This record gives sequence, C-alpha cells and structure tokens, in this order.
Amino acid sequence: SSVSTPIRATLFPGDGIGPEIAESVKQIFQAAEAPIEWEEHYVGTEVDPRTQSFLTWESLESVRRNRVGLKGPMATPIGKGHRSLNLTLRKELNLYANVRPCYSLSGYKTRYDNVDLITIRENTEGEYSGLEHQVVRGVVESIKIITRQASIRVAEYAFHYAKAHGRKRVSAIHKANIMQKTDGLFLKCCREVAEKYPEITYEEVVIDNCCMMLVKNPALFDVLVMPNLYGDIISDLCAGLIGGLGLTPSCNIGEGGIALAEAVHGSAPDIAGKNLANPTALLLSSVSMLRHLDLHDKADRIQNAILDTIAEGKYRTADLGGTSKTTEFTKAIIDHL
Amino acid sequence: SSVSTPIRATLFPGDGIGPEIAESVKQIFQAAEAPIEWEEHYVGTEVDPRTQSFLTWESLESVRRNRVGLKGPMATPIGKGHRSLNLTLRKELNLYANVRPCYSLSGYKTRYDNVDLITIRENTEGEYSGLEHQVVRGVVESIKIITRQASIRVAEYAFHYAKAHGRKRVSAIHKANIMQKTDGLFLKCCREVAEKYPEITYEEVVIDNCCMMLVKNPALFDVLVMPNLYGDIISDLCAGLIGGLGLTPSCNIGEGGIALAEAVHGSAPDIAGKNLANPTALLLSSVSMLRHLDLHDKADRIQNAILDTIAEGKYRTADLGGTSKTTEFTKAIIDHL
Ligand SMILES: CC(C)[C@H](C(=O)O)[C@@H](O)C(=O)O
Ligand SMILES: CC(C)[C@H](C(=O)O)[C@@H](O)C(=O)O
Repeated sequence: SSVSTPIRATLFPGDGIGPEIAESVKQIFQAAEAPIEWEEHYVGTEVDPRTQSFLTWESLESVRRNRVGLKGPMATPIGKGHRSLNLTLRKELNLYANVRPCYSLSGYKTRYDNVDLITIRENTEGEYSGLEHQVVRGVVESIKIITRQASIRVAEYAFHYAKAHGRKRVSAIHKANIMQKTDGLFLKCCREVAEKYPEITYEEVVIDNCCMMLVKNPALFDVLVMPNLYGDIISDLCAGLIGGLGLTPSCNIGEGGIALAEAVHGSAPDIAGKNLANPTALLLSSVSMLRHLDLHDKADRIQNAILDTIAEGKYRTADLGGTSKTTEFTKAIIDHL
Repeated sequence: SSVSTPIRATLFPGDGIGPEIAESVKQIFQAAEAPIEWEEHYVGTEVDPRTQSFLTWESLESVRRNRVGLKGPMATPIGKGHRSLNLTLRKELNLYANVRPCYSLSGYKTRYDNVDLITIRENTEGEYSGLEHQVVRGVVESIKIITRQASIRVAEYAFHYAKAHGRKRVSAIHKANIMQKTDGLFLKCCREVAEKYPEITYEEVVIDNCCMMLVKNPALFDVLVMPNLYGDIISDLCAGLIGGLGLTPSCNIGEGGIALAEAVHGSAPDIAGKNLANPTALLLSSVSMLRHLDLHDKADRIQNAILDTIAEGKYRTADLGGTSKTTEFTKAIIDHL
C-alpha cells in the first residue's frame, strides 16, 4: 500500500470536555489511518498582547501555516481587557464563511425525520462589528456593517459549495423590508453571484418567515446563506431540529483556503473529565476537515462509522439518553470502521 | 337582561382577504352579543401627508379616540415616498408592546402538542429605527437603538401581563454576549423590573440558544420578552410550531392604554374575494381585544366556539387541509356559541 506524507493540521482541544472529545478524534483518525499529523495547541493562561486574547500567537501561526485545523469548545474566561476566543479566531484568521451541515441522524429520532440543510453564515461583520456606544444617557446604539466585499465573498462560497455538492437551491435570508440598506446590499450581492449559477435556483426569504417555514417543513430549504446574526440564529434552530449542537458539525472557511472545523457546542464544565462527553459534533467536524482536504475516502469511512454507531443505538452517551462512556462510544465507532 | 352601552372600537378590515375575515368577526360578535360598535376605516388610495402613508389621519384619530381597535392584513403599496402601513401604525400610535399568545389547538395537529407561549416584543425601536446609511461605496450601516425608557416600558408590560395571567416565568431573549451595550441595556432594564416581581422566575436566554430550545422543547418557556427584531423572529417561529400565522392572534399595546389587535398574516391577494380565507387569526385577535376590555365572558364564549369548531374538525378552510368556505366556517362557529 502507498504511504503518503501526512498532512499537518492544527488541533485546539479546547476547554472543559474538549480534551476528551479531541482524544476520541485522534484515536479514530489513527484507527482509520487518516493521514493527518496533529499539531496541538492549548488556550493560554494569560492574555497574549498580539492576539488581545488568551489565544497564543503561536497557535494562530500554526493555523496560518497548516491552513487546516480542528477546534474543540473554548470557554472565554470572564474579565476585562481581552476578546472572545471564538471571535478572535474569526477576526485574526479572516474566517469569512461558517458552514453548518445539518441532517437527520437515523437512530436518533426527533420530531423531524428528513432534515438535510446547509447554513452558510457570513462570519466577520454585520451585527458583530463591535461598534457600539452610548448616544446620551439611556440611549445606546449598535452598528451593523454590511460590505459589498464580504457579501460577495460569502455568496460566492455558498454557490460554489452548492454546485460542488450537487445542491439545487440557495436561499438568501434577510430582513431587507426593514434594513433596506444593509440587508438590501447583501441581497444585491447574492443576486449578482446567483446569475453566474443558472443551474441553481435562487430565492430570497425574510428571516421571520424562514424560521416559521423551517419549523413547519425544513424540506422546503436546501442551502441557506445569510448575514452573521441570522446565521447564528438559524444554524442553532436547524441544529435543534435534529437534536442539538452536540450532533452538528461546523467548518469555518478563511481567506487563502484556510479551513478551521469546530464543534460549536459549549465546553460543558460540569461533566468535564468524567468520560461522559459526546464527541459526535467534533468528529463530524473532523470529517468536514477531511472533505475540505479532498480526502473523501477517509471522510466517508469515518462518517459512516459514526452514523452507523448512532443508528445501531447500542452505544449512546448520556446527552442522547444512553449510558455509554466517551471511550466506549469511541471504541464502538472504531469497531464500525 | 341588562343593556350596556356598546363600546366603540376601530376596525381596519385591511386589504386582500381582510374584508372577508372582518365580516366573519362582525357576524360572530353580533351573534355572541358582544357589546362592540365598530367604526370602520379603510386604507386610503393616496398618501396622507399627515401620516406619510396610505393610512388616513382620520383612521388614526379613530384609534386614539376609541383606544381600542382591530386590524386585518394591510399590504403596503409598492413605491417611494411613503411608509409601511404597519410601521406607521406602530410609530404614530406608539404601540410599544406586541403580544402574541401561541398555543396548540386541539384538532389541528402539528409536530408539537402542548405549546403554550406568550411572546412580548418591543415594537418601536431596536433594529427598526430606520437609521441607515452608506459609509463609503460598498460599505453600509444600520443602527440599532435601545433606550432605557422603551426597555423598562416593555419589561413592565411583560411582568404585569405574566402576573395578571398567572404565568410563572419570564425569559428575556438577547444577544448581549455580542451586543453588550444595546442588548446589555435591555437586560439591565428587565432585571430591574424583575426585582419587583419576586413571585415570577426571571431568566435570560441568548437568542440562538432560545431558538434551539424552542424547537426541541417549547414547554421550557412561558412568557418571552425581547427587543424588536428578536420578537419578530421568535413570534413567527412560535407560530410555526402550532401551524402558522393563520392561527395566532396578536395585540399591540400603546401608551395611554391603547390596544390594537391584529392578524399578522398577509393579505393573500391570490384568494381574496373567493370566500376561502381562514378568519381564525383575526378572530382570536378580536378575542384578545375583548380581554383587554375585561369582557372575559364574551371573550371566553367566542374563543371556546372557535376552538371547539377547530377541534371538531368538520369545518376547515383550505389552508388547514379542509374544503370549507369562510362563511361556512363562520357559521359553524356561530353554531358553537
Ligand atoms: C459564543 C458566541 C459568541 C458565538 C456567536 O454568536 O457567534 C456562538 O453562538 C456561535 O455560533 O459560534
Ligand atoms: C411586515 C413587517 C414589516 C413586519 C415586521 O417586521 O414587524 C411583520 O413581519 C410583523 O411581524 O408584523
């Protein structure tokens, strides 16, 4: 068999349950012979002046160099004078698109049984500009920024993704009936890009109506693209349809082809170190990472083993109503490889 | 029997299916001997300079005088130089709280079976400030305004409502982890008011997490209070849980005790005039109006007749999968009075 040079990827195990679920990924990758060499970085214990956060400069350099990484949950320590870890990563690495596939898992029943959605969220601007101030006492404002550059970039990513994955429809989600200038510009950019993809159906849906339609019939949608806050809201709503953030992968795409896959759930400090955490979201995120590297054989093998283990239903962590330990669930996946 | 002086209420039948569903309300009120004398006003055909919209000044004066009204769907005519009809009403009448009860209807099955939620939406500011501009070419901004005055006012309404209706919990929905100043002020005001209601549990839930929890288990919530855009989104999501905007009432509360109840669905021009419209949302809104007037006997009688008719399932309009005409459904409700 051919021995290929391993690809280096940055791994941020993160806090709380992070190290345990990262261990699960490492073991499964090893068992599946995925050609990845992990470069591990932990969140620092002091603010690094170069990142203004607890993330070390070295860890960001590692992602910039490797262009690919996987990230566990990071709890931003409370206190002043530093930035949220997640937001620092997005800003510093210019992670402009957040992609969250969300599909029903056979074996884990919810009220919805054939969800198959991709939300693509603009990840750098909008309501997350950080521009806020007090106008006069008792009157405060926050500024939402939409730029042509970031909107075109995420729209292009969404249509490119849709085409590459054989998806048929892209829905741009907005509130341009109220925010005519900002969401209006976002839509204008989506329309421009849509014209270059005549084979993909393009539509525009107002966010309130989108949420109502999603809970009534998620099969009405396929790929959804939207400004930052709407993406934050809708991707969590979609995750809820299939069981929650413990089951949904996420991948951030940055300029220059960077991909940082991540589990978007919390660090669950209450169960940390107890071998109780569900590694599914981080595992499925690691699969997204493999796909980004075009390692589809390994991705398929690992993804199928995860889905088969869940479908079988014999090994389940407590969050899904089971009694399996993280390590038992991990071993079951390895047995399914 | 005692004959009481009727109470005058403004009625905006609205556009599209509006007149048909308003007719249904009028007939049912007459049959139930609800002591309401309607003062009907239609949307004008020209922009009224005093309202800057197609709403006439007289119609706003009518609501100001009567302090109570009912409104069907209004389609804002397309074109420049005038304001949305809904937004004009909210601004001109200072309708600061939008209250949307949302409960499962027995007889109309959805994926959720015991939804019982009240969303209370700040209705005058936030993302709806109308302040937007281009900063430089390709860079636009929208300004979200939160004031202490409006936040305290809606929080007070929410707690007052919760107490008056025997509700146990108020959840303030926000994104203060990102918009620390604006949503932070909103939360601060909610906390201040919460202190005056020790018998009601107060909690704060981030909007993305709230949407995920709502689709997983709506029974986790009771009364929800929030800034304008989140209210727009979450009230539609909640409506989706029980079947859509055709089934959910809404009531706007304004300064000086004004209450303008409204159906929040669209004017459905495609089926207008065809006797096919479902009057349920406007009917349940008219019930909210009666409750606001403390006419609980009449409100109960009409509400029960509506719910019994839906539960019986014999008469159903097309949107609910039935074949009944608007007038047949209306007659069935009258028979259930
Ligand atoms: C933790 C928070 C800042 C973050 C966000 O709002 O983007 C989270 O909700 C997410 O979706 O990654
Ligand atoms: C029509 C639109 C302006 C309005 C809003 O956004 O408030 C509607 O969605 C509503 O909820 O009443």
